[in-house]
Amino acid sequence: MTILKKVSFFKKLSSKDLEKIFSIAKVKKFNKNDIVFHKSEIGNNFFVVQSGKIKIFTSIGPNKKKTFAFLEKGDFFGEMSLLGSKIRSASAQAVTDSELLVIGRLSFKKLLVKNPDFTLNLLQTLVIRLNNSDREIENMLFHNILGRLAGKIVEFAPKTNKLPIIVNIDQNELAECIGTTRVPICRAINSLKKCKAIDYKRSEITILNLKQLKSIANM
Amino acid sequence: MTILKKVSFFKKLSSKDLEKIFSIAKVKKFNKNDIVFHKSEIGNNFFVVQSGKIKIFTSIGPNKKKTFAFLEKGDFFGEMSLLGSKIRSASAQAVTDSELLVIGRLSFKKLLVKNPDFTLNLLQTLVIRLNNSDREIENMLFHNILGRLAGKIVEFAPKTNKLPIIVNIDQNELAECIGTTRVPICRAINSLKKCKAIDYKRSEITILNLKQLKSIANM
Repeated sequence: MTILKKVSFFKKLSSKDLEKIFSIAKVKKFNKNDIVFHKSEIGNNFFVVQSGKIKIFTSIGPNKKKTFAFLEKGDFFGEMSLLGSKIRSASAQAVTDSELLVIGRLSFKKLLVKNPDFTLNLLQTLVIRLNNSDREIENMLFHNILGRLAGKIVEFAPKTNKLPIIVNIDQNELAECIGTTRVPICRAINSLKKCKAIDYKRSEITILNLKQLKSIANM
Repeated sequence: MTILKKVSFFKKLSSKDLEKIFSIAKVKKFNKNDIVFHKSEIGNNFFVVQSGKIKIFTSIGPNKKKTFAFLEKGDFFGEMSLLGSKIRSASAQAVTDSELLVIGRLSFKKLLVKNPDFTLNLLQTLVIRLNNSDREIENMLFHNILGRLAGKIVEFAPKTNKLPIIVNIDQNELAECIGTTRVPICRAINSLKKCKAIDYKRSEITILNLKQLKSIANM
């Protein structure tokens, strides 16, 4: 999965498909920190983010968490338990106050059958997510935490070459995206600071040398 | 991705869809060890395994390899560079002499649009693969090599509860599936032997205690 905010599902849909989605979806509001669904629950809904920010994550024990994705306006989630096993494979939580479009199992299946554009977009997004997951597995096997952190910072950064680039993310979020704890991330941030690839202050990373950062990430 | 041999794409297709696939596909033969495609090449074909065994893998350097999947009769691959980036995200190689059905980009897109069952099956398989990849990421973060090895052995084993269960796989293949080298795998196999969960002789694992193996794998 990983971060999908650059892949807006909405943008690729025709206005006819969008109208269809809005006509069958219910809008549901979630407050900051509300859980949308828990891992291992039975899932019967497909969600599209209308506003806010949703985190997809898994946790084992109180201290170990892995964030798979932050989803924003136009991104979808919840399809996995409508297409595969009915059990939710990860948890979803509102990071900020959020509004979601909620589509039930039957309506979702109808959308799939009757709207080939919707289905094709779904396929393309799943392929991107699968590719990201497999790249993440590679990174975990072949790179150390420093390289993985550098890669995550590049992934989160607004797409521009004009330096400095500001990335709003704190150490805890970075640790959870990489699936580790704060201490090794803090150490890795200090290493990147020392070689002047980035600066870091209060939940804000400033990329000072993008080329160097990409090279550390093996990108 | 990981191992998909239990998910046969063919079995779920209607005979109409199957006929369609056979009518537009070319059959191509590959000898043992032949490369079907290399990672980073531009990909224009979708493949379905008709006979034999195909390995999907990535490598960095001469000694580090990660096997994502072994694919057998009825499994497909190559869809990722037809639906997402055109660049192959992994390499494919024949493990044994194999026959593949080869479908070009245009025919593949036509199949998608005109055969909703084909598309739905593709979606379902991608969801299973994505789920497997995300579970693998979790395992890499939360389990040690012993647990991951135990999980892989269970994954490769024929689905039966009647002990002993024979699994034909050698240390090198196991090491590549986990993305590590032979030495730590050899050590982990010895640990599993010591606690009598398995026996291991010449490319053959015998599961002696499935319950214990699953418990070590946290399954």
